Amino acid sequence: MKKISFSFLTTIPLTFLFFLSCNQKSKDQIDLNLEDVKIIKQFFDEALTSRETYNLLDHLSNKIGHRLSGSEGASKAVEWTEKIMNDYDFDKVYKQDLFVPNWKRGDKEIATIIDSNEDLSVLALGMSVATPKDGIRAKIVEVQGLEDLESLGRENIEGKIVFFNRPTDQRLIPTGAAYGGAVDQRASGPSMAAKYGAVGVVIRSVGTAFDDVPHTGGIKYKDGIKKIPAAALGVKSADRLTLALEKNSNTELFLKMNCKTLEDAPSHNVIGELIGTEFPDQIITVGGHIDSWDVGHGAHDDGAGCMQSIQVLRLFQKLDIKPRHTIRAVMFMNEENGTRGGLKYAELAKKNMENHLVALESDAGAFTPRGFGVTAKDATIEKFRSWLPYFDENTISFIKKGGGGVDINPLHKTLGTPTIGFIPDSQRMFDLHHSPNDVFSNVHPRELELGTASIAGIIYLIDKYGL
Amino acid sequence: MKKISFSFLTTIPLTFLFFLSCNQKSKDQIDLNLEDVKIIKQFFDEALTSRETYNLLDHLSNKIGHRLSGSEGASKAVEWTEKIMNDYDFDKVYKQDLFVPNWKRGDKEIATIIDSNEDLSVLALGMSVATPKDGIRAKIVEVQGLEDLESLGRENIEGKIVFFNRPTDQRLIPTGAAYGGAVDQRASGPSMAAKYGAVGVVIRSVGTAFDDVPHTGGIKYKDGIKKIPAAALGVKSADRLTLALEKNSNTELFLKMNCKTLEDAPSHNVIGELIGTEFPDQIITVGGHIDSWDVGHGAHDDGAGCMQSIQVLRLFQKLDIKPRHTIRAVMFMNEENGTRGGLKYAELAKKNMENHLVALESDAGAFTPRGFGVTAKDATIEKFRSWLPYFDENTISFIKKGGGGVDINPLHKTLGTPTIGFIPDSQRMFDLHHSPNDVFSNVHPRELELGTASIAGIIYLIDKYGL
Repeated sequence: MKKISFSFLTTIPLTFLFFLSCNQKSKDQIDLNLEDVKIIKQFFDEALTSRETYNLLDHLSNKIGHRLSGSEGASKAVEWTEKIMNDYDFDKVYKQDLFVPNWKRGDKEIATIIDSNEDLSVLALGMSVATPKDGIRAKIVEVQGLEDLESLGRENIEGKIVFFNRPTDQRLIPTGAAYGGAVDQRASGPSMAAKYGAVGVVIRSVGTAFDDVPHTGGIKYKDGIKKIPAAALGVKSADRLTLALEKNSNTELFLKMNCKTLEDAPSHNVIGELIGTEFPDQIITVGGHIDSWDVGHGAHDDGAGCMQSIQVLRLFQKLDIKPRHTIRAVMFMNEENGTRGGLKYAELAKKNMENHLVALESDAGAFTPRGFGVTAKDATIEKFRSWLPYFDENTISFIKKGGGGVDINPLHKTLGTPTIGFIPDSQRMFDLHHSPNDVFSNVHPRELELGTASIAGIIYLIDKYGL
Repeated sequence: MKKISFSFLTTIPLTFLFFLSCNQKSKDQIDLNLEDVKIIKQFFDEALTSRETYNLLDHLSNKIGHRLSGSEGASKAVEWTEKIMNDYDFDKVYKQDLFVPNWKRGDKEIATIIDSNEDLSVLALGMSVATPKDGIRAKIVEVQGLEDLESLGRENIEGKIVFFNRPTDQRLIPTGAAYGGAVDQRASGPSMAAKYGAVGVVIRSVGTAFDDVPHTGGIKYKDGIKKIPAAALGVKSADRLTLALEKNSNTELFLKMNCKTLEDAPSHNVIGELIGTEFPDQIITVGGHIDSWDVGHGAHDDGAGCMQSIQVLRLFQKLDIKPRHTIRAVMFMNEENGTRGGLKYAELAKKNMENHLVALESDAGAFTPRGFGVTAKDATIEKFRSWLPYFDENTISFIKKGGGGVDINPLHKTLGTPTIGFIPDSQRMFDLHHSPNDVFSNVHPRELELGTASIAGIIYLIDKYGL
């Protein structure tokens, strides 16, 4: 394969040069392979002009809708993604069987401030138990985080509803960090509060917008501690509740929800493969999770990542590139409330003694690409950095140490497989994450497709040059 | 000032480290100054938590609205930005007098396909002459660009309405390039068509979305060629017109607009200054344009750039940083249809023998920052690149050779002043640019504020270390 150094690139066609005017810091440092430049440009051209990721996501969002594990939507999504990948005539399309938690939200939740008879904007947290049939009515104790519970002690908490109200830290630039800094209240708050005798929990939605749209998300009930009902309030509703408590610290909250958890339901991961020509037994995984919460469309979280994964294989096909390694698009089931899909995938990989080269997950939204986070040895990270000039500086502009995804982390843990997390711009993600606003109309076609092509680009380079 | 190398940074507080985990490619290459790290982090913290840029833009957008040169909105915006900067108690606030073109759109435009009596979504192009009072009705000749006119020749064009229908190239990743590749039809199309005897022009809106919202924008009528009326069609309307022509190439279009150009009106650039402590006579300009088209709010284009410029000075004030050089926030008037403000600014700079160190313009939207484009000597560009580690990799991730802005380019031309263009993510900009969709609700608060802080950061570094 002919390699030419960057300084000779003035002789190549203008359309290439446009693409190459990028990530200039590394330009002088590496040789670019013109065939690779051309192929990666074609990935972008094809994704941006066909908008096929966007069209698939339209179907998934608007025709199937949200897809909580165990729901009819989830079953339909399994069936449809299998069909789509069969229609593309991928080399192999199949499912992995598993069982998933089967939680049902039930009727529209009610949260009312008794003093003012004011209804709050509320969503039960995922996996929450129901309130008693007629609801609960209790005094409220507002706290700014888990650590407050200990200092308050049982005497101030018992019989009350704990209101976790610490907001996300707006100063953090990657909003995933802001989310990560507040989500302990949602995940661990209910069991912590129950330990001190609380009868229920409400939390300030873990998001970055100042609106009244509640964000759901999973609870991790601790074994051996009573499960108490827990719900998220819209941010403005949380502020209203604070105000009510400032007026009268004895005001009570009425909370009613009839969610239930049924028996685990049968479900599936769905996998499509292009089989490697040289190393068919070495597997590159590209995945997202096909389940979503039961509000909105789960368009960003994570319909986008699934459709991008399918499209990575489609782009290889379209350009008639036969990968050296086997490339799998994996629709993981049950990321949101159990990770059963990710765990099953790792379990089967081990059981079947599969050889996994690397796994990439796209589960951070359909926004303009910024970079990749990589969990691998330093030499691999440096190698990936040397590839930055293949990407327009307005797409992938950094490779960061550390990255993966909830669904592929079990594979890393089980087999030590290196993992890659796709990092798009994060500013809008936690405005809509886990909320009724995570709908298709909030996805931008070009941003989504740039993600598809960026992922295809790095997978192509890995397939060609190894880790 | 104490400088420590990056390898020692493990001793600094965690909050700094968070901020520093960025733009890692350069990390090993440069020494970071901890005081600068702290100050730039404070710019970001203050912008993201106060949201003061966003609040100002809310007022400008929703209380004042669009601001075409010569309009009441433009006058109000001049008055209000002067007041705002006085309220902030900047060292000096003043106006520069100038005259601006004074074009009025008139009544809602009408464009109808005669055959089907189908009304199209239409906006007169800025500076267009009116049709005759009762409109024009003529056959249509569809072309894919200026070059088609010559091959068609007068015999195929005379007496007709020329329909420029070449779309933007979706393959181009920075959408400014896509826009730049199609906008010749809007700017030069009318005079080119008139040269061949056309009676009017309609163009496919120069944008990246597939909707029916028309995008206006300026015409450059050529001296000595008859001015003919010209309008933009929504993209879907353009597609409908193509379809109508495919059915019947003799179908006619009815076009009616009563725009007019009044006498030039008095107007102003508005300037706020923090006077330099060491080099009061050396000026750093940070600007945007306060005028906008007469649809939507001109929120991204360019209310955002103006509010960001004011906030850069406010951030210096807030942190009690006395700049060494004089820093000017400049609200340029009349970028959209004349550049009179930019020209006047350069003219006065020359006349008053001002010493301009550098000028930066933010006029590419309020989206998440990606980089800066810089027109300066190579050593300056390399210096700026060495500053990248001061910015989180999710904000400013590249420094590109070449950049400026319509309003500051005259200063470069007149005095040779180096120029910087702020480059935010471009994917959504040309969906709404010059259209009724350029409204405040399409601005994201965090994206806007990240722009403010990024600009403040580079201005701070320039002020401290020079070019």
